[in-house]
Formats: sequence, structure tokens, C-alpha cells
Amino acid sequence: MTDPIITLTTDFGTADEYVGAVKGVLLTVLGNATIIDITHAIPPQDVLRASRILAGSAPCFPPATVHLAIVDPGVGSDRRILAIHSAGHTFVGPDNGIFTPFLRLDSTIVHHITNHRLFRSPISPSFHGRDIMAPVAARLAGGMDITEVGRPVPRENCVRLSESEPFQSGTQLIGRVIATDNFGNLRTNLPGQRVVEFAGDGTITFQVGNQVIDGPNSVYAEKQRGELIALIDSQGCIEIAVVGGDAALATGIGIGGEVIVCRQHR
Amino acid sequence: MTDPIITLTTDFGTADEYVGAVKGVLLTVLGNATIIDITHAIPPQDVLRASRILAGSAPCFPPATVHLAIVDPGVGSDRRILAIHSAGHTFVGPDNGIFTPFLRLDSTIVHHITNHRLFRSPISPSFHGRDIMAPVAARLAGGMDITEVGRPVPRENCVRLSESEPFQSGTQLIGRVIATDNFGNLRTNLPGQRVVEFAGDGTITFQVGNQVIDGPNSVYAEKQRGELIALIDSQGCIEIAVVGGDAALATGIGIGGEVIVCRQHR
Amino acid sequence: MTDPIITLTTDFGTADEYVGAVKGVLLTVLGNATIIDITHAIPPQDVLRASRILAGSAPCFPPATVHLAIVDPGVGSDRRILAIHSAGHTFVGPDNGIFTPFLRLDSTIVHHITNHRLFRSPISPSFHGRDIMAPVAARLAGGMDITEVGRPVPRENCVRLSESEPFQSGTQLIGRVIATDNFGNLRTNLPGQRVVEFAGDGTITFQVGNQVIDGPNSVYAEKQRGELIALIDSQGCIEIAVVGGDAALATGIGIGGEVIVCRQHR
Repeated sequence: MTDPIITLTTDFGTADEYVGAVKGVLLTVLGNATIIDITHAIPPQDVLRASRILAGSAPCFPPATVHLAIVDPGVGSDRRILAIHSAGHTFVGPDNGIFTPFLRLDSTIVHHITNHRLFRSPISPSFHGRDIMAPVAARLAGGMDITEVGRPVPRENCVRLSESEPFQSGTQLIGRVIATDNFGNLRTNLPGQRVVEFAGDGTITFQVGNQVIDGPNSVYAEKQRGELIALIDSQGCIEIAVVGGDAALATGIGIGGEVIVCRQHR
Repeated sequence: MTDPIITLTTDFGTADEYVGAVKGVLLTVLGNATIIDITHAIPPQDVLRASRILAGSAPCFPPATVHLAIVDPGVGSDRRILAIHSAGHTFVGPDNGIFTPFLRLDSTIVHHITNHRLFRSPISPSFHGRDIMAPVAARLAGGMDITEVGRPVPRENCVRLSESEPFQSGTQLIGRVIATDNFGNLRTNLPGQRVVEFAGDGTITFQVGNQVIDGPNSVYAEKQRGELIALIDSQGCIEIAVVGGDAALATGIGIGGEVIVCRQHR
Repeated sequence: MTDPIITLTTDFGTADEYVGAVKGVLLTVLGNATIIDITHAIPPQDVLRASRILAGSAPCFPPATVHLAIVDPGVGSDRRILAIHSAGHTFVGPDNGIFTPFLRLDSTIVHHITNHRLFRSPISPSFHGRDIMAPVAARLAGGMDITEVGRPVPRENCVRLSESEPFQSGTQLIGRVIATDNFGNLRTNLPGQRVVEFAGDGTITFQVGNQVIDGPNSVYAEKQRGELIALIDSQGCIEIAVVGGDAALATGIGIGGEVIVCRQHR
């Protein structure tokens, strides 16, 4: 029998007392919880970024993991706080789109957290993460049924963020950089599979700022150190990188910048 | 039966080997310890900041938690190393004021850590966190009696930091910013309760740099995005924020800056 | 019976989904793993830095700990992935020199990880940490025999980094700064023991940029606040510090800078 797992994804940073306070509440409610930091470095109030980090990490955890996600610019407003069952995992956090990737699944179940008996008292109007979400997450991790938190709400009724989608224009497929990572890699909204299909039996290039890159390549090692390369990243989308370097620096392109796939029929 | 919990609050940063070394020693002494990072981002040697972080997070943890706090500019000097029992929790760290909030309690018990048989050997003159504090903290978490570490010392005998207190001058109550958090919120030494009493049945404003803010409000949502707002933070003190923004940036005020509560009698 | 321990040392930073993904895979394979962050702040692709952090922290952990080290600029190339037994600990990571300190030991055993049945599928060409190293590390922590991962390879056959060594020139012993830590301390490649022997019964000074420092001292407290001091650090090498201050700032010297030990015979 393994201990229940609770992951944390927040925009708290690690310099204040907020992360410690949440961890303390989790352990006070559920003494044998295994607490796992996914990240506390979500840019303040960047719900979209948090939803992507969750999409890329939560599915790697074992079934029954509880993911507590606190990026909550609407704290104290009438935004709802949700508990969600999706694909064997449980999510707790505000109804602001942070769970968009998991709300797409038909089998997802959503409950509106309203049961005050589960909360800390008094409730700080600016720290629902500590006073409402943490104790509820810990109880769910401990085996409490999701129906205890409050009424079910229709999945369609929850806030979803719209992701920017690549679009096709003639012989071009136009995508965008959605993140730059710790290595300076430019991560895009261009699904690798879609790019491959777009290429068909022609060849393609990737235009990033003034640079034109052939590809996609399979691995960094197929180009020389310092060269730009396009490949399919660990999430299945096109990534622009510099071998052993920093593509954001090399191209001057950041989040929102265009990455244009150009097709040349032979 | 849950595993013993040890929290860490240090000024080590996370880029060096120091945090890993301390965690390794804790687990070597107490293999089933649950180690919880509160923060390693205390500014180097900022004992006051560490004491505030502990005050805001340690009480959220369950009874019997051991809090290891290593901000130790006096390492190698004759400053003492203490083990403290306060309000059901145990604290281990240097006698430099880092435990000020917990030394105020009458029932607090303090022991001077001197029992060399508990230490690693040899002891590095510059890393008592690894060689003295960690093994003692792990043994205390494992159930060793606090009297084993060394003699009791009178609580009044320990270093305490004096917090800057707000003061009243006519119809003004003058406080200070004591921290800016990850969101750019200005956190002050003005207890919300005291401000409410100061207001009485009049109205008040908050003067921060050139800005005048009415309030206090209860929740961020009571003002518009981009507006300055004063409210009572999750620690019970006045906080100056910008709704969805960064008050430190908006006001140009940082740690030490004045926040003046002005009373207008009706 | 304590839970198996797996430590993490990476250059992922903490802002992306990579750390969470690796932790999720570890817990999916080994639900009762205790996961310990050593650091995720290795500068991108700085294998030498990672090897030093491991040298300073891994030996503090209890026997049977598994250390997963993912600084992998060669991901997707033909560089090998290794599992190593050294001094009672297990290491998993790329064959790029990251394990240099542990490969020096005669009793060290190395296996080349090739057993695809242990891996996740499909394998991302850019994230072997998640798809190959994490599941193998978790299985080794769970008790799987190292021979299961693939064939043994000779220890001498593995990549080792050469550390810059201090050298003697007349009455000077010339070392270098190999790291600056979170406190601005300059950490050098000058073993304290060697410096003491070099001094013999004469006196020595340390020349750092334009500054000349006597010493070495035993503890920071032997000089005044603000003064430069040389002492033996927690790893046994000479460290240049400013008492209560930042030596990197005070001297303008950084990584690679010379620290010259000068001997004056009496």
C-alpha cells in the first residue's frame, strides 16, 4: 500500500511563506501524504501556462494522484473552486481554465467545492489555496468521495481556455511559439503529426524570424553544435532549438512569435 | 502511524550542493523522514525574513513537526545552536533571532545543543547546518528527548529580533512595508485589527508614495483590474496590492517604505 | 523498513513540465519512492558543475540511495546511458562525465542501459530522462538487480572529465575559482591539505585579483564583518569569502579566476 500523492502547481514562487503554508495544511489533514512539487514558478496569474504544465506532467503520475493547482487571480471573487475526476486523476483548483486539457474528456466529472465543513476557519479572502483547496485536496487524496465536496456541475459549464491553433494559408502552415523553456528552446503549437501530414511527399522548411530551417530532424545530434534545428518535442509538437545552445537568444523570437512551415512540392 | 516530518528553511539557494547535503544527512539518520522544503530562497543571512517565513508557515504543520532553520551568518563563532519546543512543534537552528516568533510564548522550552555524540565528525567550521543541526533535527524527529541535546537555557536569554512597530501620530497611523511577495504585493507591519480600531467610526485612507487608497477592502474583486487596493492579508496584516498587477512596480515602494493610514472623522 | 530514496540532479530548471514529468514516472513505477530534489538549477548542459554538486551531496545520503542525474546535452546521439554502483550508492544518467567523481573508485561497477523492456514507449528522442532513465532508476531503487539493465562495461571505458588542477611555480601555488555559491563565496580547486603542506613552516597569503589575504583562517568569525577571508570550505578546499558579504562582488573575480597562494619563508 503506497502513500497518497498530492502534486502542487502554483504561481507562488518559493521565496514567500505560501508554499510552506499549503504543505503544512496538507500534512495536517493527511499525515501520510507524499507531496510533490511540480512547479511554483508559473508566472503570476498565468493560468494558460499552468494548464500546459499540468497537461505535460500530470498524466505521468500514477492513478489516484491528486493535483492541486493554485493559480487563482480571481481569489475572493465569485469564481468557483472545483474538484475534478479525469482519467483516473483528481484535480483541485479554481474554475478559471487551468484544467482545460482535462475538461475535454467526455468521462470527466466535475464538482463545485462548497462544503464549508471541509475548510479551514477562518477563511482568508486572499488565500483560498491554503484555507479551502488544500484541506479539500488532502481529504480527497485520503479517500473521501468527491460527492462530499459539493454538487456536480456540467463539464461544459466550466471555464475553458482556447489554445491558439495553427492555420493553413496556401503552401504555409502558420504556428506560434507558446513557450520558451529553460534551455531557450522555442516550443510551438504545431503538432508534429500535423506537420508531417502537411508535408506529404514534399519537403518543408521552418521559418523563424529571419532564419530558415530544414527538417524536421529526429534528434539534436543530426545537426552540428550551434546550428538551428526543428524537431518533435517530448509533448509531440514542433520545437525549434539550437544544438547545445539557446534558440530564443539566437532567433530573437519569444512567446507569440510565428513559426511558419513552408511546403515545397517536388 | 505517519512518518516524522522535517521542514527546511534556509538561505542556501538551490543551485549549490548545500541543500542536498543536508537532506542526505537527515535521511541517513532518519530513513523514514518526510522532508518538506519551506524555502531555500531566504536572502543570504536575512534572519528577520526567515523568522517571518517561519511564523507564516510553521504553525500550519501538524504537531511534532521538526523545523530546521539554517540562516546562520555567525557559523563558527560562539553563537549557540538551539533546540526549541514551542506550541507542539520543535525547532532547530542558531540562536540569532530566527525563532523570535516562537520565543514569545511562555510555555516555550529551549535547550542549548552541545552533545557532540549527536554530531557528524569532523565538523566543518562553515557548515554546521550539515554537521550539527541536521543530525540533531533528525534525531529529535525520530523521537529523541530534547534533554539529550544539552542543557536547558532560559527563554529570555535567547536572541530576539525587534520587529518595527507601527506608531500613531495625530490622525495618522504610520506603518512600513516589511516584504514584497512574488506577486508584487506590499506586505506591511500594520495589523488589520489595529487599523480597524484606529478607524473607529470614521473613514480611512492609505497613503503609499504618491498614491492614496481608500479601504480596506475585503477581497481583490471589489476593485477593478489595475487598481490599487488595501486589504487584510493571509497573515492578518494590511497588504497593498494592484488587482491583477504588481503594487511594488506601480508604487515604486519597496521594503522599508511607509504606508500611512489617515483617519477622517465624519 | 524505510522507503527507497531517489535523488534528482538536473538542468531542467523548475519552470517547465520536465521535473514533474520525471517525478510522475518515478512514482508510477515505484509508488513508495521518496523523491528528493538535490537541484534543478544546474546551468543548461553544464556536466562538470553537475558532477561537482553530486560529489558534494550524494555521499551524505544513506546506502542504497539511487541518484538520477539528468544533464544530457547528447540526448538522442549515440552517447550511452549508464547505471553505476559505487560505494553503496546507485547512479543513473548519461555517459558524459557527470559521474566522474564516482568512476575513480576501483570497486565501481558500470552497466550500459539497453534493456528496452524497462523503458517507456514510445521514447521521445529529446527526453530520455523521462522515458529511459526515470523508469530504470525507479526499478533499481525498487530492488531490481543492476545486471537487468544491460551489459557491464569497463569503468575505464566511461567518459571522465578532467578537473583543472592547481600547479606550483616557484613559491606560488596557483589555483582557480571553480564555483561561486549563493553567498558569493569563491570556491577553488585548492585542497586545504595541500595548501597547508605547501605553507610548511612558512606563512602564506592568497592573492585574488588585486587583493591579498592572509590565512587561512578556521572560521568566518576570525575576521571582521566586511573583510576578505580565506578558509577551508565544507568540501575541504580553499574558499575565499567576505564575512557577512559577497566575495564575488568584492573582488570582481568569478569562475576561472586565479587564486594564487604565495609562500614567504621566515
